Amino acid sequence: MSYTLDALAYKAYNLRVDVIRATTAAGSGHPTSCLSAVDIMTALFFHALQFDGAHPDCHTNDRFVLSKGHAAPLLYAVYKELGFITDAQLMAMRTIDSPLEGHPTPRFAHVDIATGSLGIGLSNAVGMALHAQRNRLPYYTYVLLGDGELAEGAVWESAALASYYKLDHIIAIVDVNRFGQRGPTMYEHDLVVLANKFEAFGWRVSVVDGHDINQLMVVLDGVRKACSGSPVVILAKTIKGYGVEHVQDKNGFHGKAFSVHELAAVLVELKKRFYNPAWDAYSGQQVPLKQIYKKSLKQKPITVSEQPYTIGERVSLRQAFGDILARAGREIQDIVCLDADVGNSTYTDIFAREIPARFFECFIAEQSMVGAAMGMSAMGDRVVIATFAAFLSRAYDQLRMAAISRLPLRVVGTHVGVEIGQDGPSQMGLEDLALFRALPNSLVVYPADAHACSKLFNRMLNYHDGISYMRVTRGSLPIIYDAHALFDDTGFNILRSSDHDCATVIAAGVTLHEALKAYELLKKIGIFVRVVDLYCIKPVDRQKLRACVMDAGSCVVSVEDHYSLGGIADVVSAALIGLPLQLKALAVRLIPPSGTAAQLLAWAGIDAQSIEHTLMGMLKEDK
Amino acid sequence: MSYTLDALAYKAYNLRVDVIRATTAAGSGHPTSCLSAVDIMTALFFHALQFDGAHPDCHTNDRFVLSKGHAAPLLYAVYKELGFITDAQLMAMRTIDSPLEGHPTPRFAHVDIATGSLGIGLSNAVGMALHAQRNRLPYYTYVLLGDGELAEGAVWESAALASYYKLDHIIAIVDVNRFGQRGPTMYEHDLVVLANKFEAFGWRVSVVDGHDINQLMVVLDGVRKACSGSPVVILAKTIKGYGVEHVQDKNGFHGKAFSVHELAAVLVELKKRFYNPAWDAYSGQQVPLKQIYKKSLKQKPITVSEQPYTIGERVSLRQAFGDILARAGREIQDIVCLDADVGNSTYTDIFAREIPARFFECFIAEQSMVGAAMGMSAMGDRVVIATFAAFLSRAYDQLRMAAISRLPLRVVGTHVGVEIGQDGPSQMGLEDLALFRALPNSLVVYPADAHACSKLFNRMLNYHDGISYMRVTRGSLPIIYDAHALFDDTGFNILRSSDHDCATVIAAGVTLHEALKAYELLKKIGIFVRVVDLYCIKPVDRQKLRACVMDAGSCVVSVEDHYSLGGIADVVSAALIGLPLQLKALAVRLIPPSGTAAQLLAWAGIDAQSIEHTLMGMLKEDK
Repeated sequence: MSYTLDALAYKAYNLRVDVIRATTAAGSGHPTSCLSAVDIMTALFFHALQFDGAHPDCHTNDRFVLSKGHAAPLLYAVYKELGFITDAQLMAMRTIDSPLEGHPTPRFAHVDIATGSLGIGLSNAVGMALHAQRNRLPYYTYVLLGDGELAEGAVWESAALASYYKLDHIIAIVDVNRFGQRGPTMYEHDLVVLANKFEAFGWRVSVVDGHDINQLMVVLDGVRKACSGSPVVILAKTIKGYGVEHVQDKNGFHGKAFSVHELAAVLVELKKRFYNPAWDAYSGQQVPLKQIYKKSLKQKPITVSEQPYTIGERVSLRQAFGDILARAGREIQDIVCLDADVGNSTYTDIFAREIPARFFECFIAEQSMVGAAMGMSAMGDRVVIATFAAFLSRAYDQLRMAAISRLPLRVVGTHVGVEIGQDGPSQMGLEDLALFRALPNSLVVYPADAHACSKLFNRMLNYHDGISYMRVTRGSLPIIYDAHALFDDTGFNILRSSDHDCATVIAAGVTLHEALKAYELLKKIGIFVRVVDLYCIKPVDRQKLRACVMDAGSCVVSVEDHYSLGGIADVVSAALIGLPLQLKALAVRLIPPSGTAAQLLAWAGIDAQSIEHTLMGMLKEDK
Repeated sequence: MSYTLDALAYKAYNLRVDVIRATTAAGSGHPTSCLSAVDIMTALFFHALQFDGAHPDCHTNDRFVLSKGHAAPLLYAVYKELGFITDAQLMAMRTIDSPLEGHPTPRFAHVDIATGSLGIGLSNAVGMALHAQRNRLPYYTYVLLGDGELAEGAVWESAALASYYKLDHIIAIVDVNRFGQRGPTMYEHDLVVLANKFEAFGWRVSVVDGHDINQLMVVLDGVRKACSGSPVVILAKTIKGYGVEHVQDKNGFHGKAFSVHELAAVLVELKKRFYNPAWDAYSGQQVPLKQIYKKSLKQKPITVSEQPYTIGERVSLRQAFGDILARAGREIQDIVCLDADVGNSTYTDIFAREIPARFFECFIAEQSMVGAAMGMSAMGDRVVIATFAAFLSRAYDQLRMAAISRLPLRVVGTHVGVEIGQDGPSQMGLEDLALFRALPNSLVVYPADAHACSKLFNRMLNYHDGISYMRVTRGSLPIIYDAHALFDDTGFNILRSSDHDCATVIAAGVTLHEALKAYELLKKIGIFVRVVDLYCIKPVDRQKLRACVMDAGSCVVSVEDHYSLGGIADVVSAALIGLPLQLKALAVRLIPPSGTAAQLLAWAGIDAQSIEHTLMGMLKEDK
């Protein structure tokens, strides 16, 4: 549908009124940040974007990401103006039963990805645009940023990536209203500096008056027609709080709703300034509420064929991951993989060589990698991300937002723990279990051999409730499971047990192998201990773990190649709380030095000898 | 001391030989990444830098940050050439007792800050340069980056900040060797693109041949003389693996040491290509080992005067934090504060107004904020960082590296938990306890009133063993402690207890107040419960907590405004493991919606009513 300039002015007026009414009704929100963007959003939603709002998941719809998520009321007002929500629904925004949250989340059917942590939206848009490029889909991805968030480095990571991949179906608009939350932005209204930055990062730049709808339309038409291998940014010079005299272009009004007492006067002011009496004819027309048909995202179970290994054979777990990933890529067409310049270490380079069209090199830019993965995932790709576990910490805010967005990203972190050896602590993933456990709805797995790796990877591919994370040891470990071993919802396997067990050792990954060695040492002197592989760090069937442990005396040792808090020890004590037992937690307690894997496992007190000594000590005390 | 070009060539030759010998001896490391930077490091350390190596902490020494930390062997070889370590020490690099780790850490006296997670060094250098600027110290800060790490957004955050603060005593050198780990960088040897980027970010740019020592010297002299309000970057075009024919300028040799078998041939090749027979006169001269005098960093205890509050008065904890911070700033001259555009919400703006010279606005760039704080801390500033707890997750990799660097950053996260209300999950710190607990040597505190906030802040100021973190509730909470209350190493206070206690509630922050309300509800019906304020999440005196709980029956409830894993429940179960009791953990288990604080506390099941119901249920079962 094509609107006249007058009709658009009318819509812009309605949006102004509605963002103020809605934020005042909520008693909170960011009206001034909405007011600067009203004309931009009008030109976008009622002129530029091509989409079927009744089918938000339609794969040819243009996409829109509100990177400046605090302008959510404006997005909601647009959807009221489009006829998808009622005025009552808009006025109930920010209340506990409303999907119209303080910042956008996919609880609202027209939102693909949650925003509100600034500087992430562009990376999400890059992921959506990569999806379109790869699948030759015609849609454009629009993303609205604030100028304040241009200070976030994540924006420039994605700016570089978009240009590198020649994404000419991405159109970014920056609402340059020159104010952040506390005060002026770094460059205020110096649009030349901003233009130079984007140009240096390979973008085509247009500068417009962000309150001139006609100019916005012309520029939006132009950039869409003139796609030529580069992403496009429109820098829109705007005024924060535009339209309300006592707040506009002033500091100190960020995130402040007008009070109920102010409301009437503000609405009168808006009417005086923006309303055209000829519009009286339109007013009062009731728009019938449109239905939304949101595609249900039921994904059918899949199983990637697994390579068989021989018991006892030493296999690199990274290689095993790389192999099953490449098989998955060959067998399942919606799997894509992203890595951050370490594919030769994570072994995603097997996938990259075999299926280059679905592999995305993100260079040394983990935030951009996770952000783009979010965008692809929102478009329906089954996304696998890999890098060193330590460097996933660089993108934790993005992972947090992915969790809030309910996106089933599959994340693999290699080079975990002191086991990596000489490279030292900066390269060791030692907090990763804590990070991924804390995320809501996450699945956290930790294979101890290549069979476990393949099977748990299959489990991740079928996990849709949130982020799944696999912790992958750097070195080679002997195969301990046969090809038919089960890795079910229990979360653990009992690898050694007897009727004479007098203690339990709970371990995973590399320390499981140390536990098995300790078992042999103790067995020689007639002491039998139960050995448990906690291959799933989250969730774990606590009742079954309690039963397993209680059947083997009162001594329990947990042992992990991870810092002592937030990892396996915490899982074990949470599961076993209340039982009459003694738990010794072996873990990395100090900042590790460089050394060989064996030296460092001993240094940390998590090798076979340490486990044996600990158990002997406990059993002596126990007598 | 001033060296001739010939003497510098000799040193460069020695460095080439030593990085190859050392990495081959270690059997690991990154020789090709060292070889590209040898001539740069020669020009830097034997010509440009002005420093007294015997006193690495001397406050007028030029500083050096090796942002491309994997070139550590080259840094160590330089210090051998400077006479501070022996050849034997160099050859023992990467072994478990050596301070010469795989990537640089301050265990080596000449390193201020650990590097090895790419893209952070520039922000550290910005912090050091800000310290010099503020204190009118004459030193320059040099930082060597790789071209691969320019993909990290954190670099551009800091580039913008350096320019904003007109840091003209910062000199960055980029070793543009056109290869990352897996393959070519985004721009390879297109130095024009890189130059345009830095210029757009407000830097003066010089482009040099990174293997021409004379040119490097001239440019380094020039930029040092011509300081004029802008930071300077030298883009050095180099060749990865320079000097060893079969690896130089080739992909596939990142992080690969030459084998023992290859060594002799490689050294012969280097000699043929770089050695001047006239140098025979120098060779074999034994340089006497120089002593290092590292200043001991014993900081004397300080106490900031605390504002008294009246019991029962409702006080904003953020305001209490802002007040004690401003007092600290007035009373103690080495305190500096950094915030990321939310000072009006964290209340650091009180400090900013009163002590503008020691307040650093970092705009919306948390990584740059933490990185700069690391640099200031390494220079001896007592640094306080604040932003929303949720957004600290953006800088977790930097915090991780700060922990490895053993820097005592004081970090404050506000807007925690569902208590923040309408703004929704993107703004809620719900993983922060898990994040900060996992860091080695951290202190994690969580005040429940303004008195606790002041006292715990004083404790943080005197904590030097690592990062300290304070979790600050958004809303106002009634004062429950008097001005003389103790917050000692026990980690908790018992606020309600009697001889008839039949259960214990362990809470902190906002949920402590809910626990106190539940106490009153239960008291009315003759049920007495013990109420514990776990004001210190890490460390906690586990023995004392066990004793406290066991004295009050076998029912324990933990309650926290945080996701269920990694926070208070984990602390409690780890402390109470083995005791015959029942623990119910109340926490946030789902992704929260928007709503009022009261609604959301009830929604999450962590309000007074939920605590009361849980206790009633447990007590009934217990009978």
